[in-house]
Amino acid sequence: MKNYTDIHDIENIPEMIQEAIALKANPFQYESLGKHKTLIMLFFNSSLRTRLSTEKAAKNLGMEVMILDINSTWNLEFTDGTIMNLDTAEHIKEAAQVLSQYGDLIAVRAFPTLKDKALDISEYILQSFVTYATVPIINMESAIAHPLQALTDAMTIAELSSKKKPKVVLSWAPHPKALPHAVANSFVNMMQSINVDFSITHPKGYALDPNITKNTPISHNQEEALRDADFVYVKNWSSYDDYGKVLHQDPDWMITKEKIGHACCMHCLPVRRNVVIEDAVLDSKNTVVIQQAGNRTFAAQAVLKKLLEQL
Amino acid sequence: MKNYTDIHDIENIPEMIQEAIALKANPFQYESLGKHKTLIMLFFNSSLRTRLSTEKAAKNLGMEVMILDINSTWNLEFTDGTIMNLDTAEHIKEAAQVLSQYGDLIAVRAFPTLKDKALDISEYILQSFVTYATVPIINMESAIAHPLQALTDAMTIAELSSKKKPKVVLSWAPHPKALPHAVANSFVNMMQSINVDFSITHPKGYALDPNITKNTPISHNQEEALRDADFVYVKNWSSYDDYGKVLHQDPDWMITKEKIGHACCMHCLPVRRNVVIEDAVLDSKNTVVIQQAGNRTFAAQAVLKKLLEQL
Amino acid sequence: MKNYTDIHDIENIPEMIQEAIALKANPFQYESLGKHKTLIMLFFNSSLRTRLSTEKAAKNLGMEVMILDINSTWNLEFTDGTIMNLDTAEHIKEAAQVLSQYGDLIAVRAFPTLKDKALDISEYILQSFVTYATVPIINMESAIAHPLQALTDAMTIAELSSKKKPKVVLSWAPHPKALPHAVANSFVNMMQSINVDFSITHPKGYALDPNITKNTPISHNQEEALRDADFVYVKNWSSYDDYGKVLHQDPDWMITKEKIGHACCMHCLPVRRNVVIEDAVLDSKNTVVIQQAGNRTFAAQAVLKKLLEQL
Repeated sequence: MKNYTDIHDIENIPEMIQEAIALKANPFQYESLGKHKTLIMLFFNSSLRTRLSTEKAAKNLGMEVMILDINSTWNLEFTDGTIMNLDTAEHIKEAAQVLSQYGDLIAVRAFPTLKDKALDISEYILQSFVTYATVPIINMESAIAHPLQALTDAMTIAELSSKKKPKVVLSWAPHPKALPHAVANSFVNMMQSINVDFSITHPKGYALDPNITKNTPISHNQEEALRDADFVYVKNWSSYDDYGKVLHQDPDWMITKEKIGHACCMHCLPVRRNVVIEDAVLDSKNTVVIQQAGNRTFAAQAVLKKLLEQL
Repeated sequence: MKNYTDIHDIENIPEMIQEAIALKANPFQYESLGKHKTLIMLFFNSSLRTRLSTEKAAKNLGMEVMILDINSTWNLEFTDGTIMNLDTAEHIKEAAQVLSQYGDLIAVRAFPTLKDKALDISEYILQSFVTYATVPIINMESAIAHPLQALTDAMTIAELSSKKKPKVVLSWAPHPKALPHAVANSFVNMMQSINVDFSITHPKGYALDPNITKNTPISHNQEEALRDADFVYVKNWSSYDDYGKVLHQDPDWMITKEKIGHACCMHCLPVRRNVVIEDAVLDSKNTVVIQQAGNRTFAAQAVLKKLLEQL
Repeated sequence: MKNYTDIHDIENIPEMIQEAIALKANPFQYESLGKHKTLIMLFFNSSLRTRLSTEKAAKNLGMEVMILDINSTWNLEFTDGTIMNLDTAEHIKEAAQVLSQYGDLIAVRAFPTLKDKALDISEYILQSFVTYATVPIINMESAIAHPLQALTDAMTIAELSSKKKPKVVLSWAPHPKALPHAVANSFVNMMQSINVDFSITHPKGYALDPNITKNTPISHNQEEALRDADFVYVKNWSSYDDYGKVLHQDPDWMITKEKIGHACCMHCLPVRRNVVIEDAVLDSKNTVVIQQAGNRTFAAQAVLKKLLEQL
């Protein structure tokens, strides 16, 4: 594993999940591994869970952490050959190489525009760091992927599932704002890679990128799709076809106690209560969102450990 | 001590003061106590002394510190049962439980609105963390209390007083902006709990919450009140009756060299020179504000130590 | 060395350069020197390299680091005797003394106004910290000096030069915004202090402070000045005579492959590509800007080490 930009960077997913579970049981076992190593965390967008869990993961491994909210410095230029006489002060070519001298690993969070589809799909911010940095890059949620979240999700399912092949359903749910596809994309990628009975349900118009969903079954009938599910992963995303648009906020798609049945209700958080998921679910034993968020630390730690071992 | 939200959480105040004094003499004595423990510091409002002294206190005890300026992430929802389709993105129920998995202790700073009296008195932000977090909560100044400051103040009086029962006067002083009651409230609570001859002086209209001042003597004649004081604690606060209002900025109430006499002049800082206290006092030997600010580290350290010991 | 506000604070520059080079070879050699010591980094202005390299330098020496973006707290007052009833909440007298109790060293970044020449030259922010703090002050770029950068620059020339007395030219280059003189000033000071053949080239109207340039040769003919240079240090600055103005952005002064010849091209970064220096230079082997930025860590570390040894 050279970088962790996507879940496909993981060579052996089941092994990685077991590593994360083992680290949770013994978080400080490898605290000498990161000695004299520095993680730089770069935020183009705000963060609560990702920031704190990744920082904590690095410290559990004995690393130093340096955090930079890049928006409070200046704008970076990502286009090659530009005459930089406008509002960008530093080119990614310099920035990435310079940061590679201060950090042994660089983690980057950079959300999509949700306006320019081609630009977002190009992952230009994350991929520019991969291209120009000379140290491994970790994706803390990019335009189209959130692989630290997906590893957490798989770890949580592994912890909770008593079945050999649990039924997992990703369900779209309403939200007032236009949200990215990154969490859903990486969850789909991950579910396609582990031994689960996986399907997706969303209203018409909300199909994800077909290059990601591939042959995963998709239903527009939420009730039918959720029947007998062991895990329901709830997530809003804006339209991919009518790119970045909120087509409607159909409250009928909110996840209710009735719909969830006996399934474990998963969500990456933050979640808008009584819009995405109703209180009766989030306040019940069905919800595993807190455990899921707690697992973020150990998923990140498994990734950092793997990258440190290969430095 | 389960949390430190108020000075009444301290079981034995004189012992806590002596602990803080002992830590000042030997700050690194317990540096293994906090090993593998993390303090999360959450700021809803800006901070200089509280932020740096609490961070330093935690590090002196060997803790890791993670800091989050919550306003640079997103708005939290504190009301139960809300349909969260407006400007709050995460409910305190999730946030507090999630943070409790990343931190062993959580410190919170959240000022009052100074507009909605009932809301401020409810301490809804701090108390929501107490309710939903599963780890101890430390108050880094809430709507109505600043107990880390009050412990510092008591420690400073203990260090400086040669008398068995010194005369301590809390004096209101003018300020151009509407300020909270938190520092004054906690100072009053603290002075009522230790062996001092305590009184308050303020102009008419500036009475503090009577549930806090109780039977503490109150005078509207500053000159008379300050006579023969050993310690004068200077602080502005906005009106409590005419809630959050600056009724006047009467410069006659500014603390002058003449008024202070031989007393030690205390203030929590930041202080507006020549508005609250004149230069002639702040630049004289009478002022103990720097020592007081320095003591913040050790008061915080005594609190963190107590909470760590009870984890 | 009591403080590091200016390169003239260094007693023995060649020794300091060798120290920095030695630290680069063995960054963790002195990691017990900073144990139980804290560096406070105060930012009045944004920073990428200075922030991360100085933080890293401190941690390499085993120090704790606390960072405060002072603009996100409140405005400091620097004038003596002011009646502080306007927009400043805390006087530097208190702030500097308080911070001196939380940090063993204080590093400050505070840019010039570029509007009030006399105020900028007075270095009122940095000098107020020197006056009122009770611990050493480190300049992380002030109104008129950037001595951490200049030490890095001298270190980089020392690493790269095969000649006993290399030819070094400081060349002005165009930029759309009004930039400070700090980097150029400290570079001039440094070049005057080490064994190089040093000259400056800039368009008419862009003369630096003559008290700094002294008898350093100055040419208005860039082509002639750069001929046979071993090192070309590129930097924009606004007019000093017509204070803080961008007189023109003459693209003829951009540094090109042709102009640079066989010289090493230096720049403190961030650099606007194809405005200050063209791609053909920055993407060639001539550029040493990445090495230069990497050296920031070790120049800072040499300074911190010296100050720690003298605590």
